[in-house]
Amino acid sequence: MITEFDTIAAISTAQGEGAIGIVRLSGDEAISIASHLYEGKNPLQDVASHSIVYGHITDGTSKVEEAMISVMRAPRTFTREDVVEINCHGGLVSVNRVLQLALKHGARLAEPGEFTKRAFLNGRIDLSQAEGVMDLIRAKTDRAMNVALGQLEGRLSGKIKQLRQELLETVAQVEVNIDYPEYDAEAMTHDIMVEKVGFVIEEVDKLLRTAGQGKILREGLATAIIGRPNVGKSSLMNSLVHENKAIVTDIPGTTRDTLEEYVNVRGVPLRLVDTAGIRETEDIVERLGVERSRKALREADLILLVVNHGEELSPEDEALFEATADMNAVVIVNKVDVPRVINLERVNELAAGRPVVTTAFIEDKGLEDLEEAIAALFFEGAIEGEDATYVSNTRHIALLEQAKQTAQDALEATDLGMPIDLIQIDVTRTWELLGEIIGDSVQDSLIDQLFSQFCLGK
Amino acid sequence: MITEFDTIAAISTAQGEGAIGIVRLSGDEAISIASHLYEGKNPLQDVASHSIVYGHITDGTSKVEEAMISVMRAPRTFTREDVVEINCHGGLVSVNRVLQLALKHGARLAEPGEFTKRAFLNGRIDLSQAEGVMDLIRAKTDRAMNVALGQLEGRLSGKIKQLRQELLETVAQVEVNIDYPEYDAEAMTHDIMVEKVGFVIEEVDKLLRTAGQGKILREGLATAIIGRPNVGKSSLMNSLVHENKAIVTDIPGTTRDTLEEYVNVRGVPLRLVDTAGIRETEDIVERLGVERSRKALREADLILLVVNHGEELSPEDEALFEATADMNAVVIVNKVDVPRVINLERVNELAAGRPVVTTAFIEDKGLEDLEEAIAALFFEGAIEGEDATYVSNTRHIALLEQAKQTAQDALEATDLGMPIDLIQIDVTRTWELLGEIIGDSVQDSLIDQLFSQFCLGK
Repeated sequence: MITEFDTIAAISTAQGEGAIGIVRLSGDEAISIASHLYEGKNPLQDVASHSIVYGHITDGTSKVEEAMISVMRAPRTFTREDVVEINCHGGLVSVNRVLQLALKHGARLAEPGEFTKRAFLNGRIDLSQAEGVMDLIRAKTDRAMNVALGQLEGRLSGKIKQLRQELLETVAQVEVNIDYPEYDAEAMTHDIMVEKVGFVIEEVDKLLRTAGQGKILREGLATAIIGRPNVGKSSLMNSLVHENKAIVTDIPGTTRDTLEEYVNVRGVPLRLVDTAGIRETEDIVERLGVERSRKALREADLILLVVNHGEELSPEDEALFEATADMNAVVIVNKVDVPRVINLERVNELAAGRPVVTTAFIEDKGLEDLEEAIAALFFEGAIEGEDATYVSNTRHIALLEQAKQTAQDALEATDLGMPIDLIQIDVTRTWELLGEIIGDSVQDSLIDQLFSQFCLGK
Repeated sequence: MITEFDTIAAISTAQGEGAIGIVRLSGDEAISIASHLYEGKNPLQDVASHSIVYGHITDGTSKVEEAMISVMRAPRTFTREDVVEINCHGGLVSVNRVLQLALKHGARLAEPGEFTKRAFLNGRIDLSQAEGVMDLIRAKTDRAMNVALGQLEGRLSGKIKQLRQELLETVAQVEVNIDYPEYDAEAMTHDIMVEKVGFVIEEVDKLLRTAGQGKILREGLATAIIGRPNVGKSSLMNSLVHENKAIVTDIPGTTRDTLEEYVNVRGVPLRLVDTAGIRETEDIVERLGVERSRKALREADLILLVVNHGEELSPEDEALFEATADMNAVVIVNKVDVPRVINLERVNELAAGRPVVTTAFIEDKGLEDLEEAIAALFFEGAIEGEDATYVSNTRHIALLEQAKQTAQDALEATDLGMPIDLIQIDVTRTWELLGEIIGDSVQDSLIDQLFSQFCLGK
């Protein structure tokens, strides 16, 4: 069921100086457009599918690039359409020039995510798989990768399809029962509903329980390092970045102001946020009065609150504890290499059950404990197996929650002995909501909006 | 003459989130190492050269990526060795994971430029062509691309080879003449030398005349915008960036502090440098006393000096003219939309022959004139044809200058009637120096140093 589309083109490698840059074309005219740019031994039309030819890209009068050209014919391609990948020497100007030529010869500049969108519209992958493709690209850690890859491989889709099948069967079974008046149809309906819909609710609940971790894996944990001046905040930052590979991402299409720094702590991606004034100011108490600083704190998912082992707790320290009282935090008593002056009992009291670790970043002491504390905080009770189906996408989470609600409505209606038609409305609605996760029965506008978040060329 | 090397691997696409990321392998074991990571229908060993297969990358226990794998067997490859390109979903973690697996299975992490180095060592390209590959990646404008591409295509190499051939023939001819004692050997030698070596000097001179423009095209023109506060420096900057595509490059392997901004003005890449205090300070005269500011000025290749049409020339303006008296500059009389107060005669006097343009950036007036002035300044008398052989590389320029010198020495020695053996030493030295441009008779250390400037994966 391949739909007919125009031919699109885009640069599919990350922007920047690279050894290889790729311009990708997809659509009926992909091969014929590429032929216009190609100067080489064999006409591209004659080239076997899934093969690579060497040649030059020409603007009609002179060669503009040396290139390897991959020709892949439908349907065994990423989009299920004819695909040509022009693999040229990296570099901004070079790759752009090839793209411009492709556009000049009739290709249309692809919208972000349009290649993946076609894979979806042409039925090669479903919506949650397409979303997995994007997550794979954005993944900040190995664990996040596994979640995305599982989704791309159809693990979530499989689960959702299974649940939808259960719901369909429920409706069918109930209807069959009605046709056998020798039985008590109402009692049968009740039993089937409790069993089948109960099962669906249970499974949806299981998925939802992974959502917390899933979202963290996918989006990273906004982490703020706070503390008085000279307690060791910079050393902590350095240790984290040094010990764990720092991940600097450059999100295409945005200015470099939005560069964000990630640190991978045992599979938990920490996104280090700048808490503006709070980090650097001299007078914390005064600063906490500033709305901007409070807001920065509130937006953090994790607080690393550093205090000094060699000094008494000051009113500033207490103010920081107070400001973060209801938040996820690890309390770090740094500088254990200095004789203790701090009142540890009071620290534990202020921590109020949140983990307290002692460290000496300057001597590389305690970082392990800190990392363990962070990991424990966010993977406590988490499903650890690589095979787990994590739900990580906000859209999926919302749909699962709605589906759970309508399934519960169906159960309630059953308990109240409501007529079967009414119960079926709820069951069908549940079935539809789950369908939206995999892209069954979704609006075009939603599809457009979803794919627009992709990077160009994907 | 393929030399035996170990198998190398690297990420060959630019760092960052991209739709496609490539891990490239090259060497005898490329296909066998890739086989260990590959899970798909056909064993890679059985796949025809220059073909693409779909499959998964596995770490032995589970799938870690979906991938298209290109298999290219020696010698029709970039390196003339077996090459495998693993084309996977972009993203930092994803591509890195595939690379790690390749290393685990016996590949060695490639050094920067090592793929291109192998292309050179295996005799597929010569040294100036390899340098063209790098320049192609780094090119900031179309014109710079053309220079690099010309070099990669062997245009400079061809010229150099032609000149070396002339020198070889000269030596041969002189020796032949000596064998015919019926002629005056000394006179013959003189005539041949004057003609042949004279021709080489002329051609080397032609190449050197392109060096100025070539270097600018390759490296960009360090440009400083200076002027008193409120003369319109920011508007100028914005107009330049807005009207001409700004090129932001992210040089791999360096931190983002080194990001540089380029603006393409009619093919001249301007690299906008921050002249520190001078741009923003209130008291220019005082600032010019600061060594740091003077230094920033001195490092600029081009000064854009902005003065205000609606105000009298101030001592600050005069100080800026004075500080840049001996530099390339365009004087910009901005705000012509405001009634004239400035003494234009004095401006022209201070400009001392350097171009003066009047503008009103706020109304988009005069930008064309400014761009023309900049282009004229740097392409005056330049060879404009696309086919021109530009010399752009500092190493090449130095070698050409040395070669010219030794050729002139040979001519002088001829004039002085020196014995032919002595003359031949200079001719041979010229031949060697030209050879170093294309990588004939160069030291290994030079080769290592050259390729280390490449980006990873190339």
